[in-house]
Amino acid sequence: MTKNEIKGVAGFSFAACAAGIKKSGKLDLALIVSETPARCAGVYTTNKVVAAPVVLTSPRTRKGQCQAILVNSGNANACTGEQGMKDALRCGALAAESLGIDEELVAVSSTGVIGAPLPMDCFEKNVAPLVNELAENRIDIVAEAIRTTDSFTKVSAAGGEAGGKPYTILGVAKGAGMIHPNMATMLGFVMTDAELDPAFIDAALRGAADRSFNSITVDRDTSTNDMVLLLANGKAGNPAIVAGSREAELFCERLDAVLLDLAKMIVRDGEGATKLVRIHVCGARDDAEAKQAACSVATSSLVKTAFFGEDANWGRIIAAVGYSGSEVDPNRIEIRFGDVPVVRNGVTTGGELEAKATEVLKTPEFTVTVDLNLGGGKADYYTSDLTYEYVKINADYRT
Amino acid sequence: MTKNEIKGVAGFSFAACAAGIKKSGKLDLALIVSETPARCAGVYTTNKVVAAPVVLTSPRTRKGQCQAILVNSGNANACTGEQGMKDALRCGALAAESLGIDEELVAVSSTGVIGAPLPMDCFEKNVAPLVNELAENRIDIVAEAIRTTDSFTKVSAAGGEAGGKPYTILGVAKGAGMIHPNMATMLGFVMTDAELDPAFIDAALRGAADRSFNSITVDRDTSTNDMVLLLANGKAGNPAIVAGSREAELFCERLDAVLLDLAKMIVRDGEGATKLVRIHVCGARDDAEAKQAACSVATSSLVKTAFFGEDANWGRIIAAVGYSGSEVDPNRIEIRFGDVPVVRNGVTTGGELEAKATEVLKTPEFTVTVDLNLGGGKADYYTSDLTYEYVKINADYRT
Repeated sequence: MTKNEIKGVAGFSFAACAAGIKKSGKLDLALIVSETPARCAGVYTTNKVVAAPVVLTSPRTRKGQCQAILVNSGNANACTGEQGMKDALRCGALAAESLGIDEELVAVSSTGVIGAPLPMDCFEKNVAPLVNELAENRIDIVAEAIRTTDSFTKVSAAGGEAGGKPYTILGVAKGAGMIHPNMATMLGFVMTDAELDPAFIDAALRGAADRSFNSITVDRDTSTNDMVLLLANGKAGNPAIVAGSREAELFCERLDAVLLDLAKMIVRDGEGATKLVRIHVCGARDDAEAKQAACSVATSSLVKTAFFGEDANWGRIIAAVGYSGSEVDPNRIEIRFGDVPVVRNGVTTGGELEAKATEVLKTPEFTVTVDLNLGGGKADYYTSDLTYEYVKINADYRT
Repeated sequence: MTKNEIKGVAGFSFAACAAGIKKSGKLDLALIVSETPARCAGVYTTNKVVAAPVVLTSPRTRKGQCQAILVNSGNANACTGEQGMKDALRCGALAAESLGIDEELVAVSSTGVIGAPLPMDCFEKNVAPLVNELAENRIDIVAEAIRTTDSFTKVSAAGGEAGGKPYTILGVAKGAGMIHPNMATMLGFVMTDAELDPAFIDAALRGAADRSFNSITVDRDTSTNDMVLLLANGKAGNPAIVAGSREAELFCERLDAVLLDLAKMIVRDGEGATKLVRIHVCGARDDAEAKQAACSVATSSLVKTAFFGEDANWGRIIAAVGYSGSEVDPNRIEIRFGDVPVVRNGVTTGGELEAKATEVLKTPEFTVTVDLNLGGGKADYYTSDLTYEYVKINADYRT
């Protein structure tokens, strides 16, 4: 089975329905349930304005156990005050009652419009029936139900083996904002049947999120609702994977791959985006400075519109590197579009190579390499182009 | 004479021509000359990639004297290596020779495409003739010649009196980028006939630039070529204005007014912009946190597209405040569009007021107030909306 054919993972079941939260009548409420309480880890928005479901779920998952995730789209339950907290609690209680499990084992998650109260009748009527529809191999229906402006669903999976037992990692995500600068919510739920040591699961998720979702967005730009959860129910029957082991390393590689795959889908689905561009900065004094410079290029509106215009405008890239705050010697900078060098020692390599670079820009996915030639630091950042369509989607979002 | 009718200032003369640097054949080379060496101060880009004219001019103006400014549009002479420095030097020498003054008294300034060598024949042929065309009251022709993507010219002036002697402050600027995040060059040249004390002129310019140009852009986003110069030739005959005096205070007020006026014109002329929005943050713990929060709101692409869509989407504003890094208590935030409160204590004031707020958004200029209710810190930031036209201008810039 290829990773695209994996639709389930042992011991997890899925359901979704159109609860009426979205005016469009599309799927908007989903449930993910593990047969038994799963070990869990979560990473959450660092925004100081935090939506009720994050306030509720974050301390629950910090206890390390989770059995069910109730997630809705169409309404973020953010900036909704005390009522929002009551509503989030009630959502969790509805799922817990219907499943016959402890409330503390339920994670709730919301995405959609900010500032409107959650339409609780939609939950009151639909959570219990949802439980009867739980089925294996239906990650697709969850992926569908968590969409807001996403133009396609996002699922990725990987398989591995630990202690002779095969396991699966299955991830689903939503997000289609310009990602940065951005408040469009990013949600990610990752399920595995591998048994993970409690001291390992948290670091594994944090590391993978850093190299994926946090390389398309940064802390200061997280929305009020961002949440990534990893649930591990141990159904694979392997001895718990412990930090520092070779098996932990392999698990992390696979988790990284699943999350990076989802993260790239989010960029590719950037609102109005027509291109996926990897900004690869190398030769920085250290990795942190490389990431800072890559971020600066990846988030420049002028660079992003030039990508849309298929214009090898390296001047905008060099300027973005210059104001990134990272150490730069302008006379050492090299820039390549794909394999085509357009800047060497800070100056153009000439019109012929620039014309070749324009050909690279015409492709839907390419890498821009910025070599600072100062040290060994490197980092990747993924970005999209800035298009008419982006403006249209975001100007019309609530109308 | 109203400030819009002031086209000159005692002891300064102006000239411009179409030197062929711009392919369009429009005005692209200008000269500003003071009869006698003027006292001067300059503020420059903080970008680490600095264009040759900035490298040349910055140390010259630091000596405190300047008599002429040679400025071209169409080519930024940035990322042009050693040749770029030679060319900038030659430009200054041409002006100095033609005027019969010391090279060190000439400031050179460029704006336009990055990475292409300066077409020196355009300068060789046109600088000397330009000297013969110098005339008073022709700030308009300079304003015209420094335009790149500017859709209108930018001139502002104010008058004052010191020691019984009337003086004039006359400013001209160019800039029409989205300003932030941005590498579009901002140039500003301010001339006054007031006599200013050498210990005062620098602080006066720095303060005024902070409250104007630096409240539409921030350090990290300066282009390779940004430059603001203040020249004071003392023709008004007043005793030198010294720091700390009442006359210094009044001079600063007027200088602020001229620079803020020019800065607002730049925002109003934001590429593709249809609205000028003042983001007023108050109630922050201090002014620096207020500015940080205002900047975060003013630069959010989602907020800016909502302005374009005339959507009172306060959720995006509250989220931008939340990720700004400034201290925020979500339950205390108040937001007003014009005079219409849409958020109180972090939650909506209801649909009726939101509808009223939408009316405010339909006007071309309005203020959004964010009151954090934490302290006495306040700051203003000016921004524009993000439109289809912005994408079009920047995608097609070089084609």
